[in-house]
Amino acid sequence: MVKGNVSAIFDLIIIGGGPIGLACAIEAKKAGLSYLILEKGTLVNSLYNYPVNMTFFSTSERLEIGGLPFPSINPKPTRAEALEYYRRATVQYELNIKLFEQVETVAKEEETFIVKSYKASYTSKYVIVATGFYDVPNLINIPGEDLPKVYHYYKDPHYFTMQKVVVIGASNSSVDVALETFRKGAEVTMIVRGDTIGKSVKYWVRPDIENRIKEGSIKAYFSSEITEIREREIDIITPDGPVTLENDFVLAMTGYLPNFNFLNKIGIECSVDENRIPVYSDSMETNIKNLYLAGVVCGGMNTHTLFIENSRIHAIRIIEDIMSKK
Amino acid sequence: MVKGNVSAIFDLIIIGGGPIGLACAIEAKKAGLSYLILEKGTLVNSLYNYPVNMTFFSTSERLEIGGLPFPSINPKPTRAEALEYYRRATVQYELNIKLFEQVETVAKEEETFIVKSYKASYTSKYVIVATGFYDVPNLINIPGEDLPKVYHYYKDPHYFTMQKVVVIGASNSSVDVALETFRKGAEVTMIVRGDTIGKSVKYWVRPDIENRIKEGSIKAYFSSEITEIREREIDIITPDGPVTLENDFVLAMTGYLPNFNFLNKIGIECSVDENRIPVYSDSMETNIKNLYLAGVVCGGMNTHTLFIENSRIHAIRIIEDIMSKK
Amino acid sequence: MVKGNVSAIFDLIIIGGGPIGLACAIEAKKAGLSYLILEKGTLVNSLYNYPVNMTFFSTSERLEIGGLPFPSINPKPTRAEALEYYRRATVQYELNIKLFEQVETVAKEEETFIVKSYKASYTSKYVIVATGFYDVPNLINIPGEDLPKVYHYYKDPHYFTMQKVVVIGASNSSVDVALETFRKGAEVTMIVRGDTIGKSVKYWVRPDIENRIKEGSIKAYFSSEITEIREREIDIITPDGPVTLENDFVLAMTGYLPNFNFLNKIGIECSVDENRIPVYSDSMETNIKNLYLAGVVCGGMNTHTLFIENSRIHAIRIIEDIMSKK
Amino acid sequence: MVKGNVSAIFDLIIIGGGPIGLACAIEAKKAGLSYLILEKGTLVNSLYNYPVNMTFFSTSERLEIGGLPFPSINPKPTRAEALEYYRRATVQYELNIKLFEQVETVAKEEETFIVKSYKASYTSKYVIVATGFYDVPNLINIPGEDLPKVYHYYKDPHYFTMQKVVVIGASNSSVDVALETFRKGAEVTMIVRGDTIGKSVKYWVRPDIENRIKEGSIKAYFSSEITEIREREIDIITPDGPVTLENDFVLAMTGYLPNFNFLNKIGIECSVDENRIPVYSDSMETNIKNLYLAGVVCGGMNTHTLFIENSRIHAIRIIEDIMSKK
Repeated sequence: MVKGNVSAIFDLIIIGGGPIGLACAIEAKKAGLSYLILEKGTLVNSLYNYPVNMTFFSTSERLEIGGLPFPSINPKPTRAEALEYYRRATVQYELNIKLFEQVETVAKEEETFIVKSYKASYTSKYVIVATGFYDVPNLINIPGEDLPKVYHYYKDPHYFTMQKVVVIGASNSSVDVALETFRKGAEVTMIVRGDTIGKSVKYWVRPDIENRIKEGSIKAYFSSEITEIREREIDIITPDGPVTLENDFVLAMTGYLPNFNFLNKIGIECSVDENRIPVYSDSMETNIKNLYLAGVVCGGMNTHTLFIENSRIHAIRIIEDIMSKK
Repeated sequence: MVKGNVSAIFDLIIIGGGPIGLACAIEAKKAGLSYLILEKGTLVNSLYNYPVNMTFFSTSERLEIGGLPFPSINPKPTRAEALEYYRRATVQYELNIKLFEQVETVAKEEETFIVKSYKASYTSKYVIVATGFYDVPNLINIPGEDLPKVYHYYKDPHYFTMQKVVVIGASNSSVDVALETFRKGAEVTMIVRGDTIGKSVKYWVRPDIENRIKEGSIKAYFSSEITEIREREIDIITPDGPVTLENDFVLAMTGYLPNFNFLNKIGIECSVDENRIPVYSDSMETNIKNLYLAGVVCGGMNTHTLFIENSRIHAIRIIEDIMSKK
Repeated sequence: MVKGNVSAIFDLIIIGGGPIGLACAIEAKKAGLSYLILEKGTLVNSLYNYPVNMTFFSTSERLEIGGLPFPSINPKPTRAEALEYYRRATVQYELNIKLFEQVETVAKEEETFIVKSYKASYTSKYVIVATGFYDVPNLINIPGEDLPKVYHYYKDPHYFTMQKVVVIGASNSSVDVALETFRKGAEVTMIVRGDTIGKSVKYWVRPDIENRIKEGSIKAYFSSEITEIREREIDIITPDGPVTLENDFVLAMTGYLPNFNFLNKIGIECSVDENRIPVYSDSMETNIKNLYLAGVVCGGMNTHTLFIENSRIHAIRIIEDIMSKK
Repeated sequence: MVKGNVSAIFDLIIIGGGPIGLACAIEAKKAGLSYLILEKGTLVNSLYNYPVNMTFFSTSERLEIGGLPFPSINPKPTRAEALEYYRRATVQYELNIKLFEQVETVAKEEETFIVKSYKASYTSKYVIVATGFYDVPNLINIPGEDLPKVYHYYKDPHYFTMQKVVVIGASNSSVDVALETFRKGAEVTMIVRGDTIGKSVKYWVRPDIENRIKEGSIKAYFSSEITEIREREIDIITPDGPVTLENDFVLAMTGYLPNFNFLNKIGIECSVDENRIPVYSDSMETNIKNLYLAGVVCGGMNTHTLFIENSRIHAIRIIEDIMSKK
């Protein structure tokens, strides 16, 4: 165990204690590397912050790490099941992890990385950034967005019962939030930039939202945008002109971004187009030698292309690459 | 529906939209009284803020209001089931309720009450205060109690996994919190003022906590008190002298109080002893004519003597009393 | 309470204690009619025999009877929740019901019906048959169908783990059974008479089964029929000729029928076409005066056109008709 | 894979595919032994037959086999979770198991065991009998015990709603059945041979049943025995003389026995006292060289002394012994 500021050099420091960060640590451990995970919140912090009733899109097999079975009693596992699964996997492999310890900088001195959290400083030969994309909401940048009635994260539909709720967006999360709050008695209006429900919305959800809109039990403004949020009202622009709605809560399900500030600060280059995809090689190495990316953070703005299921493989690629360098 | 500041005189205004406030409204409605419920948070706000895995101590029959069956698939219902039950009861009786509207003052002018929220002003002939006891935590009043690592409310054990957690108290909630966080991998220490686990702790929980303490998997300091909380440590006084413990989180499950400030402000007298029990008659009327108390708030500091099960009856008593006056 | 063979004349006897039978009894009770429900199995016997993991297709509101809210914590309620809801509704209205008492004959003498169970004989002025359609499986009529390895009812997928399972049919139930047993490790083959998955299969299930078939993880023979079942094998005819498959279990999800024998025995006429739809008027009265039909039994062979949601209304129609005759 | 009657000699045949049989197979596999499990029913057949709402007495960690974590979202895991856990463990280790294949005889020819099922014959050098104790109910041996209304196994309380149910015994299972059926509306009477609720009844259940009996909502005859069961009545002898009760169902929760017939048939000696404990050494070897016992079957009549938690160790002991002989 590492204590205080005096620390040996780790082979590897992993930034982020989500499923992919844990997967990297397990592979590192199997390969005999010394490693440390630094996680700014609780274990699998993003999953912890998911809506309480959230169900994954994948079957449990596809969420497994470290070759450990994930027995779920549901066709698709719930947030609660996943929290417990990843916790037990962490215990099983006795992973070396520090929670609630946010990394502030990663500097490189010759061949050694110096990773500083607000608590301590650590050194390592390799670094993996597996910080996901859930910490920075994609802001709409309109007046009133900072009011307490505006939520970029959503937990529990009961809170909004009997309230006038506006849901912004038409992605899977927007649609889930609209349906859940409607089913708990909220008066729901969707404001959708496009002219239809998002193409990526899952087939088992799409007709449900489409039928609710059609029958009028959920109201939707398509090809519309919200322009201002006030204490009791919001303004929107619609194809038929501006509209002002009475409103209690705004659920701005407009997605999240990787922490580009952090990537930038530690020197990782991203593509200069709107996708801002970080530069990395087939072995997940960035423009900085021995600094790797793993998981959803690799997607840049395209946060919907990578998820646990198809980025677990990053862990294996990276550790193989590290081992080949030794 | 009441709009803005212009309002008819209600027969009855009910302050608090918890189970007992709702029960009062249902009885009022059955009796043909005009009424309004004002609730400062969401519907059944206290239940909403209960721990996510919380299970009631009563079977569901004992939590029913308005004569509506509460079908639960568990021996004792969960928080999620109760939220939905009370929501459906509210819809069923089409209760007239305003949520997120905190009452600030209740004044009496001749025979009329003027009830002011931050949004509007309402008048009524009768008022029921059914505000419960969950909004004001019973503070320990020691240095560091205001640090963000100190919680007086508790939601989800996963958050504390792998952390050094101190639980203060040995009541049912303290014990639940200690066991839940322990089972999710927290390193738990209990600080207990008394020399044993609380007498009111339920029989189906007591041996569990006693065995965990005995086997050493949960540590407990009895006849001890916490004296200071710092960022990474706490100080306690024990029978064997002062002890300083490394610590990440303090869960101060030291109970809650009725909002005595509010009771005081609106003129309700309480007993002057340590129990501070509000004055009320057999028909639940306070020292202020036509102003009633219902539910847990009646218990003063003895918040453990009244709960949904044995205070549902208040609703009937009060409405009978009002009807007898008409 | 009726005891033994000596009985007063009821206004109404209801045959069948499913949701619609209960709804009829509640309406009868509200109208002040004396009534008795006779149910051959347990309360809501068909629901009891549904698969343990079964989820309804409707939201809970649409399954409600007697104006009682059905609070469910799921988007669509489970079998377990429904069992408890209908039980609580029965208790709430103190319904007069005899369980495990199968009706054998209904005879009419002048204006009085004589309803005989194996235990006793009852008389009434009106009779409602609300016996559903779940008691008589739609047999395939092939050799081996009576082997113990052949199931027309299905409870729990775990039983079939690691076994070679054939599922017959492509209806909602067939598809559910195929997916559930596949997900619990059965080796599943579907035998489908048509050339595609059934048109009525719910949108939130269809792509799942289609993708499993496409990827080969569930095997399907379309335009095929099973011709013989033996202890360890089955024979099928496919477009490419006869095929014999190794086999452990046959799950013959070929649907169920109303008990036409019983309808026939008590004199209810049905259409002579393949649909065999019982004759009944707008007020649900059959060709026999004062004898009514309610619920799914009305659909004849078209068991998929009526369900709880759209046949609850029968209860109201019938009791209105009876009251108009008095 | 073994096919038909022609088979290589296995190192080990394990009779019984419950948790302990699976644990033995996993240890065998880890040790490089060839093995086969023969199970007469489905995978973990006894657990499958447990009551649907059953919860284990242990936390999930204590039910684990093969070093695989058992993540459960409940304080104590449910039957459904356990079924899935053991299934996933079986898949994970690709265990060689034949289900629905009951062993009929085990003979020894020189150093080789010949194990015959109704389907095939297998040979091995070692045999483990891990058949549990759940297949043979401990009969009461009174007239009427073979009526269809008498159950020695119990699945689901709803079935008994509104019925007159007699529960025989005062063990954990009896008490669970009494409370569950009572809570679903059965009219419950307990017939208890002793003068009190069983001493082994769990502390979190005991006061519940004692209070129900005290308040009269469950009736109990202590120091009493049932003497005859008839279609609609039962006879009991009580300290106050004989009593005849109206009755619909008898739930004879009088426990289960190891299959002594089978043990006897294959030559395993048991103690001649009432406990009938099989003879076995510290390494679990019986009086027959190279034939071992594992799990609950070792307890003889004392079926309550051994369970998954404390007999998982048998698997390790046996495989170590086998390996030491090689």
